[in-house]
Amino acid sequence: MTLQFWFEFASTYSYPAAYRVEALSRETSVQIEWKPFLLGPILQKQGWNDSPFNIYPAKGRYMWRDVQRVCANYKLPLQKPSKFPRNGLLAARIACLCQDQPWLPAFVNAIYRANFADDRDIADARLLQAVLNALGQPGAELIEQAQLAENKRRLREQTEQAQALGIFGAPSFIVEDELFWGNDRLEFALAHYQQRQQSSMH
Amino acid sequence: MTLQFWFEFASTYSYPAAYRVEALSRETSVQIEWKPFLLGPILQKQGWNDSPFNIYPAKGRYMWRDVQRVCANYKLPLQKPSKFPRNGLLAARIACLCQDQPWLPAFVNAIYRANFADDRDIADARLLQAVLNALGQPGAELIEQAQLAENKRRLREQTEQAQALGIFGAPSFIVEDELFWGNDRLEFALAHYQQRQQSSMH
Repeated sequence: MTLQFWFEFASTYSYPAAYRVEALSRETSVQIEWKPFLLGPILQKQGWNDSPFNIYPAKGRYMWRDVQRVCANYKLPLQKPSKFPRNGLLAARIACLCQDQPWLPAFVNAIYRANFADDRDIADARLLQAVLNALGQPGAELIEQAQLAENKRRLREQTEQAQALGIFGAPSFIVEDELFWGNDRLEFALAHYQQRQQSSMH
Repeated sequence: MTLQFWFEFASTYSYPAAYRVEALSRETSVQIEWKPFLLGPILQKQGWNDSPFNIYPAKGRYMWRDVQRVCANYKLPLQKPSKFPRNGLLAARIACLCQDQPWLPAFVNAIYRANFADDRDIADARLLQAVLNALGQPGAELIEQAQLAENKRRLREQTEQAQALGIFGAPSFIVEDELFWGNDRLEFALAHYQQRQQSSMH
């Protein structure tokens, strides 16, 4: 059994969620699957060509204030990005290529920090390469592999899988057939994971 | 200082929130203002003529599962209403007329239970009258007063005030100039209330 963590690099609430999921994977025995996907194509099918936080200004104003409080609660730095949403396509392709690597959580969190704490352009291949290199990985090579047709298709398929699972926002968590949406629902997902694990042991 | 609780009778997550806010008003010294409003006119200005949970089916399917888990967590009965959203206009007018009465929290919770636990039509004046009478209030008389032009205007103005405060969904909480959206944010609102209260005492 696993706890699947579905995340999108442009998503504000995925930033604190990724931070908390990394802590879980470090501090507990919970089996986590890191699942990058693209929220854009799913939102487009709902008729949205931009983030709902841009389309609906009252909701957007509130979100920035709220995510500030949420991050402060975890002592996570936050700086409203000068561009929102940022294009996370290449970062997501890299994450998809490397999603089973032990250093993947560190990569994901470094990208979220670049976007939401340091206001860096996460679409910039030089930034991505520097992050990969700092993690001891062959940055240039991975970026090349990430852009091969086979890996592009892999991310596309993972995004289609997200939609087929009923995912409509990020972050989302899946434990067996239960979907949990939002950073606020990590505790519910975890409780469900532990409950299912206990019942499978009896 | 007060904690304002802004609620809409058709809103699913306002049901557990109202239950928890009533417990707060019973068990703590937190000063609560009960603020009924209509979410429909606010959503209409965003271009939505129905609940977003009906317009976006994946979101709607998820919401019903999630609100079931949330209610189970508080041991609150839930039965998916055969009609959603239900018309809460008359109930909101009554709540607006009586929003400072000590029995108002009990009325609000009885209406939420009728809608979300007993699948009753909360637009039915007979139901509303029976609930008021059961609370020892003159039901027929209050229903008549609730429908006078002056009170209709009062609810309209309260709804405009909600929008002016940046409210875009229900339930919402306001403490001083801070907005908190969603049943999940009652704890943040409460923490803010207590923090402001302490700092005003020094």
